[in-house]
Amino acid sequence: MSKVGIIMGSKSDLPVMQDAIDILKELGIDVEVDIVSAHRTPEKLFDYGKNAHTRGINVIIAGAGGAAHLPGMVASLSPLPIIGVPVKSSNSIDGWDSVLSILQMPGGVPVATVALNGAKNAGILAAQILGSTNSEIQNKIIAYKEELKAKVVESAKDLSTN
Amino acid sequence: MSKVGIIMGSKSDLPVMQDAIDILKELGIDVEVDIVSAHRTPEKLFDYGKNAHTRGINVIIAGAGGAAHLPGMVASLSPLPIIGVPVKSSNSIDGWDSVLSILQMPGGVPVATVALNGAKNAGILAAQILGSTNSEIQNKIIAYKEELKAKVVESAKDLSTN
Amino acid sequence: MSKVGIIMGSKSDLPVMQDAIDILKELGIDVEVDIVSAHRTPEKLFDYGKNAHTRGINVIIAGAGGAAHLPGMVASLSPLPIIGVPVKSSNSIDGWDSVLSILQMPGGVPVATVALNGAKNAGILAAQILGSTNSEIQNKIIAYKEELKAKVVESAKDLSTN
Amino acid sequence: MSKVGIIMGSKSDLPVMQDAIDILKELGIDVEVDIVSAHRTPEKLFDYGKNAHTRGINVIIAGAGGAAHLPGMVASLSPLPIIGVPVKSSNSIDGWDSVLSILQMPGGVPVATVALNGAKNAGILAAQILGSTNSEIQNKIIAYKEELKAKVVESAKDLSTN
Amino acid sequence: MSKVGIIMGSKSDLPVMQDAIDILKELGIDVEVDIVSAHRTPEKLFDYGKNAHTRGINVIIAGAGGAAHLPGMVASLSPLPIIGVPVKSSNSIDGWDSVLSILQMPGGVPVATVALNGAKNAGILAAQILGSTNSEIQNKIIAYKEELKAKVVESAKDLSTN
Amino acid sequence: MSKVGIIMGSKSDLPVMQDAIDILKELGIDVEVDIVSAHRTPEKLFDYGKNAHTRGINVIIAGAGGAAHLPGMVASLSPLPIIGVPVKSSNSIDGWDSVLSILQMPGGVPVATVALNGAKNAGILAAQILGSTNSEIQNKIIAYKEELKAKVVESAKDLSTN
Amino acid sequence: MSKVGIIMGSKSDLPVMQDAIDILKELGIDVEVDIVSAHRTPEKLFDYGKNAHTRGINVIIAGAGGAAHLPGMVASLSPLPIIGVPVKSSNSIDGWDSVLSILQMPGGVPVATVALNGAKNAGILAAQILGSTNSEIQNKIIAYKEELKAKVVESAKDLSTN
Amino acid sequence: MSKVGIIMGSKSDLPVMQDAIDILKELGIDVEVDIVSAHRTPEKLFDYGKNAHTRGINVIIAGAGGAAHLPGMVASLSPLPIIGVPVKSSNSIDGWDSVLSILQMPGGVPVATVALNGAKNAGILAAQILGSTNSEIQNKIIAYKEELKAKVVESAKDLSTN
Repeated sequence: MSKVGIIMGSKSDLPVMQDAIDILKELGIDVEVDIVSAHRTPEKLFDYGKNAHTRGINVIIAGAGGAAHLPGMVASLSPLPIIGVPVKSSNSIDGWDSVLSILQMPGGVPVATVALNGAKNAGILAAQILGSTNSEIQNKIIAYKEELKAKVVESAKDLSTN
Repeated sequence: MSKVGIIMGSKSDLPVMQDAIDILKELGIDVEVDIVSAHRTPEKLFDYGKNAHTRGINVIIAGAGGAAHLPGMVASLSPLPIIGVPVKSSNSIDGWDSVLSILQMPGGVPVATVALNGAKNAGILAAQILGSTNSEIQNKIIAYKEELKAKVVESAKDLSTN
Repeated sequence: MSKVGIIMGSKSDLPVMQDAIDILKELGIDVEVDIVSAHRTPEKLFDYGKNAHTRGINVIIAGAGGAAHLPGMVASLSPLPIIGVPVKSSNSIDGWDSVLSILQMPGGVPVATVALNGAKNAGILAAQILGSTNSEIQNKIIAYKEELKAKVVESAKDLSTN
Repeated sequence: MSKVGIIMGSKSDLPVMQDAIDILKELGIDVEVDIVSAHRTPEKLFDYGKNAHTRGINVIIAGAGGAAHLPGMVASLSPLPIIGVPVKSSNSIDGWDSVLSILQMPGGVPVATVALNGAKNAGILAAQILGSTNSEIQNKIIAYKEELKAKVVESAKDLSTN
Repeated sequence: MSKVGIIMGSKSDLPVMQDAIDILKELGIDVEVDIVSAHRTPEKLFDYGKNAHTRGINVIIAGAGGAAHLPGMVASLSPLPIIGVPVKSSNSIDGWDSVLSILQMPGGVPVATVALNGAKNAGILAAQILGSTNSEIQNKIIAYKEELKAKVVESAKDLSTN
Repeated sequence: MSKVGIIMGSKSDLPVMQDAIDILKELGIDVEVDIVSAHRTPEKLFDYGKNAHTRGINVIIAGAGGAAHLPGMVASLSPLPIIGVPVKSSNSIDGWDSVLSILQMPGGVPVATVALNGAKNAGILAAQILGSTNSEIQNKIIAYKEELKAKVVESAKDLSTN
Repeated sequence: MSKVGIIMGSKSDLPVMQDAIDILKELGIDVEVDIVSAHRTPEKLFDYGKNAHTRGINVIIAGAGGAAHLPGMVASLSPLPIIGVPVKSSNSIDGWDSVLSILQMPGGVPVATVALNGAKNAGILAAQILGSTNSEIQNKIIAYKEELKAKVVESAKDLSTN
Repeated sequence: MSKVGIIMGSKSDLPVMQDAIDILKELGIDVEVDIVSAHRTPEKLFDYGKNAHTRGINVIIAGAGGAAHLPGMVASLSPLPIIGVPVKSSNSIDGWDSVLSILQMPGGVPVATVALNGAKNAGILAAQILGSTNSEIQNKIIAYKEELKAKVVESAKDLSTN
């Protein structure tokens, strides 16, 4: 069975990153959550990045704020697809620092970056990645998109009866 | 066999997007290239997005510049993982327009965004996605990373002999 | 009789978009309001864009936040003038994302962009568009501008009596 | 017959603004071109803004660079719809100055802003405005959009035969 | 006797602009305050700009937010030195719009721009301008600067006794 | 007779700053030019700032690039009005560094900031400052503005005969 | 014994700068705190910068907001390593002004810039500088880093027991 | 004897980083130059960061472009003071990416950031760090500053004889 590893630079990132955990659980996908700080626990980062793919993890979601080096460093160490979530932390310069630190990776080492604080989308993207070669998961994605659609149609009805 | 669909908004994006084609071919992964403009060929966009996953495509790479709506609209229509490449076109405001138009997707509809003009990384990311459940492709990624490393080590030697 | 179609990507955009509805009603112009999400209801977007001009709509106002694709995609599908309202949503990067996603459209497919959260001005612009070939509406615009002027003159009097 | 007034702050804006003139002529719409500087010919600006709608002009396109006040000041003086073209002039701060000076108009006085150097789109938008109540012009817009589509389809064919 | 004209685009700018009024009164310099909106009262703007120097005004301070055209348009109409105060209004894009709309004036028509919401400094600058050829006012500036210095020295003492 | 002091941080700023020298000479105003580096010649800065007003200088124009401290430091030391010219130097971050380093002065110590590379406007502003209490200079400004107007009118004629 | 001089432009910077004082005390390093305003007490700045290294100070930390000239001017006057702390003050343009005013120093006069409001890191950097040639202090840094690591490991345990 | 380690992410950074090498050699300080890529040679990064201080290196200068993780990761691994040089690489978003990726480090792990492409200043800062406890090196810094001053004075003379 496939599994998504979710890591974040600090416990203070959890309120944002929880969205990724929730949506993956909702889609029935196994998750493993940990705190790995590129700047404060570099050895743990190293072990995590080197070994995740040998431990049965298929996709990694990494969230961090400010000069966010966690997603890029895991991408440096792991052959897995890495999804980066820029977190808007306090003292961030409006989130630009984490967005650019995660997005602008050099040739050879991609990070799949999602929107600022976009942990929910990171979870959905992880499911889409697993679903790209697994029709059961892909069908869940298709069903999820139908639900999104239904909610918009419902809210449009509310509008017209206002 | 798995296949990556590569689309771009205009033929003028090809010099940038060629890097994705080249790296995927180098990694032995099948690609299908097309021009699909969200703004000038919306019907083609619609057909492409709706049907790509039924035609055997596993991952889509979409590149566009300016108010770049192609990656996000394909993400709206397809259950596949979509990789977005912000292209720095002429009259772009320093590339910020394409970066933000692709990255800042709403909850529910992710685009895996790579760096400005980062088509090479889009190709590698597509391979990593396929490799996440395919050890043959994953091993190619591991080998590719070893080559990157060897080149840096080589260039460091040049430096010290200078 | 002429009519303005007002659409928005999510019901959460209504508090901003209400300003467009109000000013158009105040100017005696017929409005039709709906929720159309480019990313969650692409089929509805497609129908809306393709048919609005055949249903008696003369101008479309479209508001959206983040990677705001609604105005540009409607512009892709409709021959009508499209007015785009960048909405400053939560998790927006200071509004820059919606401004650039709406403004920086490619050659051939314009969107008439107004200020961030500028739904009131979108309504006035729609009236000016209708008024450009309809003297009754144009006279209402002229009268509206006289009122604006009178209010400033009044507030200047308050100042001097302070 | 309807007419579009095209003004610019300086003759140096003409290479950019020519695109608006060309597309409108191509669409068979009458244009009147003039140089009006908000900062160097304020009296001419005043006369132009006050009287354009009484001289048979239906839409105004105004292009300017830097602290671009021409579009907004004409909008202050005229009841017509005003389309603003931010021009990227030398010594501009990457075009941000003209974009923000034109876009961020206060409530009550809209300017329909198009992309940086987007004069072509300003011309098309003017035609769409006239076409919103004139089916002959609207049909030309529909035909123009078909041509755009055909060109993309053609370029996609070139791609596949490469 | 010399006089400073202080104008602002809207009464909502008064809380910011009051700082200019206060410091000039503190320095014993005559002020005349008015509301002049470039976009809503263009005729009043025109009269104000054309005649201020003939009515005994020596320096003009103009404050405005968003696409702030008031300082630049007065500069267009008047031979006096114009000081522009960018006001951070609601719906401003972080103040960048008013800063760039006031600062980036074209060659020939300067505006002396001060910091965002820097009305106090606008007042001091007006006094320095008058003081450049009037030693009584210049001496007040010198005394004011001594006071500033004394306050810092005082606060440093507090620090060391903490 | 009144005099304008023009200083710049480096001889490499001269090509930009020459515009200030030229326009002031054209307006018949005496100038004194020097190189004063806040960062490399702090003692000279100190002497210059402390004594300029005692040597018969009425206005100071200071140009600098990058972290441009020259205008603000002279403003700290002198009671004269200081005009700051942000210079776009090599390795500047698009000019934002010099603009913000000069503009965003704290309360009590204004710098009259002009546009990026706007040395010509710095010269005109200096003349307007002197002209605010000197009708001969003010008349020259009025004449200069008439010339600007005439040139625009002329260029508009060229346009219509094309 | 070595000593770190900590200065700030205004007492209002103390809540931010206190972090530098606290961490240095925690590391057992002597500090001397003062308020020195580049713009309001230039003479004090001059004395401070000229003499700090002769009074036994080894490293200077300087914090300031807005057009922050204090770190750069002290760097101009002193041969010591200067650490600059950009402070996000009220009326700052999102902190960009202080960041760029401190960071973008010209060739020859470096300031060691830390993150926006990063006074704690300024303190640690000062300790690392002293520790670069003092093994006792360097060992304290090594121990401090071990503590940081332990806290992350602890918080990761909390996570897994949740 | 003290030594400065200079590392860069790619050989393409050498033209920028050479300035650091040159100024340190000019000041008679020993340097050791290497290429260490955070993203392509993470093991080498790890070894370098862990062991530099045990090999006699006192200060590290690290230069990198784009999502520049090298300076911050070395800071994570080493107790030495780390100086970061943001390099403006091709496909950089105007240098903002490397500046923010290096500057905005989290609490506990500082990087002493210098200006974009400011390798010369990185070298001088390294010398100042060594000089903070070594009067011979500090005297060289004092002499270097005197030379800078003399060059400015010389260039000012050239100006006046022109």
